[in-house]
Amino acid sequence: MAILIRDCTAITMGDPLVRRGVSIAIEDGKISKISENPQDFEGTHFDTVLDGKNKLVLPGFVNAHTHLAMVLLRGYSDDRNLQEWLEQEIWPAERKLTEDDVYWASLVGIAEMIRSGTTTFCDMYFFMDAVAQAVKESGLRAVLSYGIIAPQPGEKAQRELSVTEKFLREWHNGAEGRIRVAVGPHAPYTCCDEVWRDARALALQYNTIIHTHLQETLAEVNESFRRYQKSPTERLEALGVFEAPTVAAHGVHLRDSDVATLARRGVGLAHCPTSNLKLGSGIAPVKRYKQMGLRVGIGTDGAASNNNLDMLEELRLAALLAKRDDPTALPAAEALQMATQSGAQILGLEGVGHLAEGAEADIMLVNTSGAHWQPGHNPVSDLVYAAQASDVETVLVAGRIVMKEKEILTFDEERAKANVRALSAKYRKL
Amino acid sequence: MAILIRDCTAITMGDPLVRRGVSIAIEDGKISKISENPQDFEGTHFDTVLDGKNKLVLPGFVNAHTHLAMVLLRGYSDDRNLQEWLEQEIWPAERKLTEDDVYWASLVGIAEMIRSGTTTFCDMYFFMDAVAQAVKESGLRAVLSYGIIAPQPGEKAQRELSVTEKFLREWHNGAEGRIRVAVGPHAPYTCCDEVWRDARALALQYNTIIHTHLQETLAEVNESFRRYQKSPTERLEALGVFEAPTVAAHGVHLRDSDVATLARRGVGLAHCPTSNLKLGSGIAPVKRYKQMGLRVGIGTDGAASNNNLDMLEELRLAALLAKRDDPTALPAAEALQMATQSGAQILGLEGVGHLAEGAEADIMLVNTSGAHWQPGHNPVSDLVYAAQASDVETVLVAGRIVMKEKEILTFDEERAKANVRALSAKYRKL
Repeated sequence: MAILIRDCTAITMGDPLVRRGVSIAIEDGKISKISENPQDFEGTHFDTVLDGKNKLVLPGFVNAHTHLAMVLLRGYSDDRNLQEWLEQEIWPAERKLTEDDVYWASLVGIAEMIRSGTTTFCDMYFFMDAVAQAVKESGLRAVLSYGIIAPQPGEKAQRELSVTEKFLREWHNGAEGRIRVAVGPHAPYTCCDEVWRDARALALQYNTIIHTHLQETLAEVNESFRRYQKSPTERLEALGVFEAPTVAAHGVHLRDSDVATLARRGVGLAHCPTSNLKLGSGIAPVKRYKQMGLRVGIGTDGAASNNNLDMLEELRLAALLAKRDDPTALPAAEALQMATQSGAQILGLEGVGHLAEGAEADIMLVNTSGAHWQPGHNPVSDLVYAAQASDVETVLVAGRIVMKEKEILTFDEERAKANVRALSAKYRKL
Repeated sequence: MAILIRDCTAITMGDPLVRRGVSIAIEDGKISKISENPQDFEGTHFDTVLDGKNKLVLPGFVNAHTHLAMVLLRGYSDDRNLQEWLEQEIWPAERKLTEDDVYWASLVGIAEMIRSGTTTFCDMYFFMDAVAQAVKESGLRAVLSYGIIAPQPGEKAQRELSVTEKFLREWHNGAEGRIRVAVGPHAPYTCCDEVWRDARALALQYNTIIHTHLQETLAEVNESFRRYQKSPTERLEALGVFEAPTVAAHGVHLRDSDVATLARRGVGLAHCPTSNLKLGSGIAPVKRYKQMGLRVGIGTDGAASNNNLDMLEELRLAALLAKRDDPTALPAAEALQMATQSGAQILGLEGVGHLAEGAEADIMLVNTSGAHWQPGHNPVSDLVYAAQASDVETVLVAGRIVMKEKEILTFDEERAKANVRALSAKYRKL
């Protein structure tokens, strides 16, 4: 299956960042050629040719942290204090979850992500076989983790770890290599030391990453000092956790010494600005973090606290928030880098998040003809500061077209939406 | 011309906020009936019936502060310090502006606004006859002001005021009453006392409002204290300016005593969170302002500093930012109120910004079938936190359909875009 994207403007995330009038050939799931010279593509038979005229072509977004199936709880409860929201609303609702709920909600979340240009996501939730099945069918790329919650050592903790190990055995490197399974201890405050040590061992054994939440709220940091006389980062460092490659979501409240530790260990941060604002957690100072050497990607978090999975909106918010006292902070290209290549790097995905010969063909085509794209002085600025998710028209993952001119080709989106509406009735309050 | 919107879910901005299964009749430019009972609409002949199934119907957004024709400079310069950006980029580019540029750019900006559900906007720029002409043709509602810049008293200042008075005479209450002309002294730091006194007199004489910028940056406040030993608000209050109804944009750096003065005088604030972040001005503490009695609407500012005119994005950002340390601040319905009815109120527009019998028929129909609207627990939350501009399908202003199923009916959008692209060549740097 060879595909040609003909005569487009490409944002490569490499050097040069923008290439005009290029064509891109895709063979065996990877980008085989990028060139301004039409002769470079002669002699190859292309099964599909996508017209790149008035299209911006760029790598698909990497959503570095989400809870996909929480689509079911989008708009279920908003504008409440975090603890009330969790204890009175979200956790009771999640106790009603079934595998079927998670499967259909995952497909709807995947539809939303494809429609907004996301080709890879890093997930943590329950019933992860159902999520993996949805990823397999839809054609996306994903790093999936079962969320381990085990505050006490013992039987329950071991059961949580064995769920993870079973998931690793069955799905790690599955779906033609598009699925990686990560080990997912939910957070320092929900997992005991024993679980953290075992999680580290599992990640090293299976050559994969740890995916967790870290220092999302100030309360969490204060509680850790009270219980352990250490920040959560210090506690995990003392347990040796960061000897396994780790992606930590949020990091709103990292002290400089925490940032230094995480940077030294190569831990990746998944910055989730919408969720952090909406839950009142604060604003992660990512400009400073990056200056201190921390690797930062961008995530939407789940749809219960965002309330969408739109990475274009998320990277824009990251770029804007960083500028609140310095308009030169996090320029457009740097925000885009976080949402693509840096996200892939912190997830340990080689060849993802940029357009280059030999790279994975995870690509979106964006229509630039709308009023909000005029007059078109600078495509990177227009994408980051003015574009809309709905401008994304065609999406490829691993060289396969998963959406063509706004039609999702890999699964029945209408059926998934109808099922989610029906299944959500049991959560409905209004 | 009678129009019926049949069987929709309406967000009224009144009580009850959400009404399901209602129909809305529109006659002579106004809403004549809202009812759940189909019999209430029998006996009326409707020229057009719009199907409200799976549609959310709500009042059009009121963009309380913009510089519409700056669409020409979208993406022209970003991520720079405010003074460099203005002095080295924006002002030199604006010196090349012609009336033709402003006319076509205004039409493209209006297309963008219609497509994102805005039915009223409050503008300040140059060549305002061209903006008024674009408003007249497009069918939108607008409060238009010529931006007076006159730091010194004398001939230039009087010339600026006479441009305003000519514009008032020719366009105030024009376009079947859809256009109001405001008096637009650009800002305290760009207008001398003489101009402020004359602007106040003009506004009172023509029974209209003053539209200005106020305390956008801390530097502006400090400079005012140095020159006048007063904050900008104190200086305008001492000049009697606020005896005329006033809308002030930004207000990022208001001291409590300024807020008290503005609240007592009934001054309206146009909160522009995206522009304030992007230019590094900061975050206006609107939760506190509102608690102190200040009336607050929402504006996008111009496309050179936003870089779009999407009010849905703007009200979402306002809601999210206010929550950064308190998730209960500015709940969804309150943010929506600011972007609709409160915006209309600060502009002095009666019967705009809500759905009620007798109110102006400025209405949008929003498609709720997309993946990002599922499962649909709460339409207000979904609109504020998850919707996209592109979900807006049909827009009416003063009872006239200006966009139907995504087609703009009142002017040739493609021609306007082509002209803007051609005219923008002289500004192009890349």
